[in-house]
Amino acid sequence: MKLEQAIARLAPVLDEFQPGHVWLAGAGPGNAGALTLDVLSALAQADAVVYDALVDGSVLNVAPNAELHFMGKRGGRESVRQDEITAQLIALAGLGKRVLRLKGGDPYIFGRGGEEALALARAGIPYRILPGVTSAFGAMASVGIPATMRGINKAIILATGHAAGSPEDLDWAALAKTGQPIVVYMGLKNLSRIVASLLEGGLNSSTPVAVVMAATTPDERIVISNLGGIEQAALAAGIASPALIVVGEIVSMRAELTDLAARMRSA
Amino acid sequence: MKLEQAIARLAPVLDEFQPGHVWLAGAGPGNAGALTLDVLSALAQADAVVYDALVDGSVLNVAPNAELHFMGKRGGRESVRQDEITAQLIALAGLGKRVLRLKGGDPYIFGRGGEEALALARAGIPYRILPGVTSAFGAMASVGIPATMRGINKAIILATGHAAGSPEDLDWAALAKTGQPIVVYMGLKNLSRIVASLLEGGLNSSTPVAVVMAATTPDERIVISNLGGIEQAALAAGIASPALIVVGEIVSMRAELTDLAARMRSA
Repeated sequence: MKLEQAIARLAPVLDEFQPGHVWLAGAGPGNAGALTLDVLSALAQADAVVYDALVDGSVLNVAPNAELHFMGKRGGRESVRQDEITAQLIALAGLGKRVLRLKGGDPYIFGRGGEEALALARAGIPYRILPGVTSAFGAMASVGIPATMRGINKAIILATGHAAGSPEDLDWAALAKTGQPIVVYMGLKNLSRIVASLLEGGLNSSTPVAVVMAATTPDERIVISNLGGIEQAALAAGIASPALIVVGEIVSMRAELTDLAARMRSA
Repeated sequence: MKLEQAIARLAPVLDEFQPGHVWLAGAGPGNAGALTLDVLSALAQADAVVYDALVDGSVLNVAPNAELHFMGKRGGRESVRQDEITAQLIALAGLGKRVLRLKGGDPYIFGRGGEEALALARAGIPYRILPGVTSAFGAMASVGIPATMRGINKAIILATGHAAGSPEDLDWAALAKTGQPIVVYMGLKNLSRIVASLLEGGLNSSTPVAVVMAATTPDERIVISNLGGIEQAALAAGIASPALIVVGEIVSMRAELTDLAARMRSA
């Protein structure tokens, strides 16, 4: 069956984008293939798209008639810019436009989607959340690390590393004591502090760690080491943000699966 | 732009499904709109689809020429059936078919995808993982509970409740001590034990809890209470599996956002 026919069959169940509404949507980890049908449909219907730095430019080709507003937040000034973003969403919706707020990953997972939803609710703007594949799980699927594996883990923790070392930081030692794997978003610049906190929490320095950069894109890179060695290994490899840090025994599953990956590449 | 045109623009970046390969894919939380483009494309190309009970039947309409193999795992006999499933995947791939293994949610998150990948790797069958929106985050987006919220949490824990009370159970008290929200998959039948373990771990009985059943489908239902009251509330409401349990202050965000939901329904 052709892809055009396939989507035509499912189109009747997708929602119509109403003027004056805002859809807060996740574009997934980076590759266009991870976009959901709802997000594709939203792009095709939107009058305005407000997107951030983690959205792949190629997906915007699907919205050729929409106004494109780049509102990336890289490089600090977060709190100021967040106000500007919500003001922009409210203003565009107030003009009766169909406004798509498109972020990398999932809007409700370290994406400030909750704050944007709250601002819209307070302003009386109708909105909807369209989930995306969150960056952690998209990255792990891409590099071949199962998020859960029978006999290894029965839980997985997603955490943000951007506040590591600050007074409002989370309790890394308590996370470590759960014995469950931890995936850290936005943790690269605080990698040294996070590693120290996890070691203090009782994790062994031999605990496997992976750092994945630009997952699912042509620039994807992965460095595998252990808690004791990951900082130097990531530095030596020239890993840059955005990157995800995966800590735990599940990382070691990748080696078992690697033979096949090599076989697939040569197929 | 029409949806057919939109998908035609992105089709060139989607991968071709090779004969004899297996794609382990996630269908997302339930609604067709949460399918990814990669999964739609996989359905359209597959010769055989091996699917489970959590996959919405309507998405199978997109694979009219594929053999459909239902291999749901509801109602026990898990370990035997898992062997049958992997044997089936290997046999179908060995016949040179394009085999789509389609599960609800994400195959790598409490979906036995890691075990299936390992079995395929050992059998020398080329495979690929196509992530889906995991059930927890799809459900939370649908009912309006942000997974993370500035000022409330900096991490979120996904856990499985199916082994609660057994010797290989996870350490619920340690999870509770992190102070971070916990989303429990497959926990409804062990709700009583899980609640007791979290209270023992130091969570207050006033901690907000939501139970979400059949999220994103027309049968979606939500019950909100607190740790002390959720068991009785879920029972009184007649909640049945599959259901997700969300524990933590983020649940209280839903009430703040509810006014708007009401406004949207009346719009």
